[in-house]
Amino acid sequence: MRKVYLSNTPRQEALDIFMGQVNIARRTEKLALKELLGRITSKPVFARLSMPGYHAAAMDGIAVRAESTFGASDQNPYKLKPETNYSNINTGSPLPAGFNAVIKIEEIQMLEDDSVEIITPATPWQHVRAVGEDVVAGELIVSAGHCLRPPDLGALIAGGITEVEVIAKPRAAVIPSGSELIEPGKERKQGSIPDFNSTVIAAYLSEWGAEPTVMPIVPDDPVKIKAALISALAKNDLVIINAGSSAGEKDYTYKVIEEIGEVFIHGVSSRPGKPTILGKAESKPVIGLPGYPVSAYMSLEWFVQPLIFRCLGLPVPERKKIAVTLGRRLTSEVGVEEFVRMSVGHVGDRYVANPLTRGAGVTMSLVRADGLLIIPANSLGFEQDETVEIELYRPQNEIHNNLLAAGSHDLIIDLLGTALKENYPIMSLTSSHLGSMGGITAIGHDQAHLAGIHLFDPATKDYNRPYIRKMLPDREVHLVNLTYRMQGWIVPKGNPDGIEKIEDLVNKKIAFINRQKGAGTRILFDHLLTEAGLSPDNISGYEREEYTHLNVAAAVAAGTAGVGMGILPAAKAFDLDFIPLVEERYDLLLSDLFYKSSEAGILLKIILDKSFQLKIEKLGGYSMRDAGKVIDL
Amino acid sequence: MRKVYLSNTPRQEALDIFMGQVNIARRTEKLALKELLGRITSKPVFARLSMPGYHAAAMDGIAVRAESTFGASDQNPYKLKPETNYSNINTGSPLPAGFNAVIKIEEIQMLEDDSVEIITPATPWQHVRAVGEDVVAGELIVSAGHCLRPPDLGALIAGGITEVEVIAKPRAAVIPSGSELIEPGKERKQGSIPDFNSTVIAAYLSEWGAEPTVMPIVPDDPVKIKAALISALAKNDLVIINAGSSAGEKDYTYKVIEEIGEVFIHGVSSRPGKPTILGKAESKPVIGLPGYPVSAYMSLEWFVQPLIFRCLGLPVPERKKIAVTLGRRLTSEVGVEEFVRMSVGHVGDRYVANPLTRGAGVTMSLVRADGLLIIPANSLGFEQDETVEIELYRPQNEIHNNLLAAGSHDLIIDLLGTALKENYPIMSLTSSHLGSMGGITAIGHDQAHLAGIHLFDPATKDYNRPYIRKMLPDREVHLVNLTYRMQGWIVPKGNPDGIEKIEDLVNKKIAFINRQKGAGTRILFDHLLTEAGLSPDNISGYEREEYTHLNVAAAVAAGTAGVGMGILPAAKAFDLDFIPLVEERYDLLLSDLFYKSSEAGILLKIILDKSFQLKIEKLGGYSMRDAGKVIDL
Repeated sequence: MRKVYLSNTPRQEALDIFMGQVNIARRTEKLALKELLGRITSKPVFARLSMPGYHAAAMDGIAVRAESTFGASDQNPYKLKPETNYSNINTGSPLPAGFNAVIKIEEIQMLEDDSVEIITPATPWQHVRAVGEDVVAGELIVSAGHCLRPPDLGALIAGGITEVEVIAKPRAAVIPSGSELIEPGKERKQGSIPDFNSTVIAAYLSEWGAEPTVMPIVPDDPVKIKAALISALAKNDLVIINAGSSAGEKDYTYKVIEEIGEVFIHGVSSRPGKPTILGKAESKPVIGLPGYPVSAYMSLEWFVQPLIFRCLGLPVPERKKIAVTLGRRLTSEVGVEEFVRMSVGHVGDRYVANPLTRGAGVTMSLVRADGLLIIPANSLGFEQDETVEIELYRPQNEIHNNLLAAGSHDLIIDLLGTALKENYPIMSLTSSHLGSMGGITAIGHDQAHLAGIHLFDPATKDYNRPYIRKMLPDREVHLVNLTYRMQGWIVPKGNPDGIEKIEDLVNKKIAFINRQKGAGTRILFDHLLTEAGLSPDNISGYEREEYTHLNVAAAVAAGTAGVGMGILPAAKAFDLDFIPLVEERYDLLLSDLFYKSSEAGILLKIILDKSFQLKIEKLGGYSMRDAGKVIDL
Repeated sequence: MRKVYLSNTPRQEALDIFMGQVNIARRTEKLALKELLGRITSKPVFARLSMPGYHAAAMDGIAVRAESTFGASDQNPYKLKPETNYSNINTGSPLPAGFNAVIKIEEIQMLEDDSVEIITPATPWQHVRAVGEDVVAGELIVSAGHCLRPPDLGALIAGGITEVEVIAKPRAAVIPSGSELIEPGKERKQGSIPDFNSTVIAAYLSEWGAEPTVMPIVPDDPVKIKAALISALAKNDLVIINAGSSAGEKDYTYKVIEEIGEVFIHGVSSRPGKPTILGKAESKPVIGLPGYPVSAYMSLEWFVQPLIFRCLGLPVPERKKIAVTLGRRLTSEVGVEEFVRMSVGHVGDRYVANPLTRGAGVTMSLVRADGLLIIPANSLGFEQDETVEIELYRPQNEIHNNLLAAGSHDLIIDLLGTALKENYPIMSLTSSHLGSMGGITAIGHDQAHLAGIHLFDPATKDYNRPYIRKMLPDREVHLVNLTYRMQGWIVPKGNPDGIEKIEDLVNKKIAFINRQKGAGTRILFDHLLTEAGLSPDNISGYEREEYTHLNVAAAVAAGTAGVGMGILPAAKAFDLDFIPLVEERYDLLLSDLFYKSSEAGILLKIILDKSFQLKIEKLGGYSMRDAGKVIDL
């Protein structure tokens, strides 16, 4: 029997139920100094000894008995004899018996016979660090629940403490389950997937202060999953099973937890992350995480992070929130809370955010994300240009210096971002793959700093300018050449179908893989169709769209398409053949405000750099002959 | 010859000169996945493989050939036969050859003979995750200079990467120099100081991404320091010598660096941290840090952190800045930039900050600090109630929930703070030891949430109330009893001088150690003096002041005073004798706004908790019989 439906428990309600039902048992351990950094005290720590442990000189100079200096003045300098009346002393040294003040070296005059002359009397205890000035025995050094930082360690040693009782890191087991899983780095076969979730989950657990153990991969077999769970429970404070948490034919996680424990929640009304299981076994929390990576990591943060932080006695850290203007409309289903990964940049005088792909299977959406937008369950979404609040994944000053590249994607944009970061570590570049038309629109709406575009206009045989003039007639914008690049047919190795011209696709009935609407490459293909007197109906697969050159090449490499149109580096990435067709101009479109900024100056400097240009040309398929040249509009 | 003067180079100028002259050579290393978290990429990383590597089902259901479903409808359900027309498929599994779409399990009807019935046609490629949907071969996963986070590791594995070239941690040697230094934890003798600076410096270096090595302690001997420096240079990318950086008799660091290298700066115009040496030897940065702990850590942050971050290609992280109202006037010398450690809390509707001790030798000032105030070199300081900007050492939400306790200090205040943190991790309590009078003033100026006070009024024989009425006639405030505690004479073990009453101090000419003006204990002592018909002039040491009970006990323990007045736990901390004199009332004074807040409710709940009270009474010298009782004003 397949259990088809999951519950739709609101996330906060699920968390409250779970936190009410389970707890990570807190253990403590005594650790030596070397291991204490970043650990949390389980008790207040009081000083055992004082620092300094004796009265010490606070200055370099001489130790004296203050009473023996009373009366000294310009008119009546006193002469002090060594040992009897004074003793040389350095900062930190103990005051010799009988002395109770220090006179600074600058205020004494050395005489020939080792005596010194003073003209100012000392007051008792001047320039003396009293016993316990830093730490005094019995004083509270740090309270319980304190995360130990570098200076805390100094105060502990000063207070005579060399061992501290801290909260032991909760032990968390991660059980990777799935017959399709193989160890990361093992050779992949058709149908096998490297288990990268466990590495990511373990890394999050470490960052949150737990001690993760990744167990061996378990196939989709309830007996084996149960055995793994029992074994994990024996040695850990909580157990995470990933995945099999949904209600499919081979989703055994629910059943296994139910058999030896209890399930409180199966399914929450948040996405990605819905198929989550919250339960317990042997009084320990057991969590079933979804298989899709983004779902798994979201659910982990929702339900495991609070458990760990409660055990450590720390508040869950909050991300910085900022108000952003939405670059695109975002719809959402009512009744479902949605977590959308966003790219964010500071354009003009505001922060602009755009959604990255919402697919739960796209780890790269988390890698690229600058922030997270939470669409509440009762919302239908947000309109373009609406102001919303998002949580930042990166420090705000980094976001402030993050350049947003929209438009058509090219490898050079990535390399430009890399060079930028290398030379100006505070700066970064995020690119959204919107296609050339999308890029022009983004610049028009101040939703990006720059856009890569390569739009051929059949009427004028010119690139980009006719489109900009038409789409942004009233905007002051600037166009700068980045490169000329070769577009061509991406075909299997050896070009088995012998494709050379567009007619070959029709005659030989080759399955084509197209680019999305608004992409310059699609416009070029459409132009070739028109020139050849053909229509989209003649092309098998015209309706299959991919968003990047690389994804087109991937489809050809996978054999689900026989040909695609794209650039040389994409073909190279998949060891495919490339039949050059036409050299096209690829320009950068910049808003006027950005064009006049110092950041644009930095970007142009890199583009004009000869070694950068050489690196690009070496890739093949690119000419940098006009790179950085401003094109009149 | 003693070199007496240091230069007064402005900090930023010193940093610019130093960064211009030295550099930490960047090394790279290839690391396996397990070691990558938190490391910085030295090159952009491109995917080697695609994820998924095949067309995969995005839903649980059946794989079909879309073309074979065209025409299915409610009226015309299609029956599909297993294997021939469809195949069961789970999320993530590869699409069998010949199929190009997935129909969700919810949309099919299982028939008896293993056939399924569908009433909706599939569109080609529906519910299919295309090759490379997550990561596509050739795609940029992370750029150079990227700090690897958990999801990045997932994307790397997905992209077929199991080893990444990262920037090697710069190796930093710390040479502890000073004849007075002993290893932390070793038994202390008169004049010996445990080397805690090295532990703190190494901890900071680790936090900043370097790999520290603490070298053996070197005595104040230029030959040995030079040998240690040469040995450290051989294996490290930078070397820190702590201390001997000033210009005293035994300060050899300058000389040693000059002998084998070059010194660019000796002395900066910032405090604490002035006696800093910035130099190089064998093309590697060599830094001489001051011996006083706070000076050393400040200077480390000013000059070593930027070097390390530049090597790692990261911007130096900035601390959050907030505007605060100054609780006290702060003066500063013109020409000197001052770094003042501050306690900060949110009182009423504003942040209030008070300076902690400015002593460069007080590590505890950094342990207790919530923030840092930088007084510019051209400033004479700030007035009380002036608004200034400070850098926060702790997250702002923690500061927001930080209760400021002013007034007289008692161990119970620390234990109250500890219990608060244990029960409400988001909350904390910081106390400034201002004495009882200072505490009333602080509440009157809204500079604290609560103040511990124990002020005896000889005229009325009452505690606290007469003072509050007089000092805060127009303020609505609340008084709550915390404890009754025994005040007495703190004397050496065995009470060798046989002290019982105040007259004994005079008759036996015992050196007394007093408390600061405004302290309840001093007022009590003055009252005893008056009652006995004595004056301060009769008391030897009346003018010697300490700020806490523990420091009074420390002076007695060190033998520099024969008697002090204080409470039992202080005597116990130093294994001294305690001669009880009088039981006094110790109350908490609360502002009206705070009294009505939920935070005050939490605090009162702890005070009223029987197990908390029992714990206090077990310490001895305390009675909790009225703890939590509101006292009419």
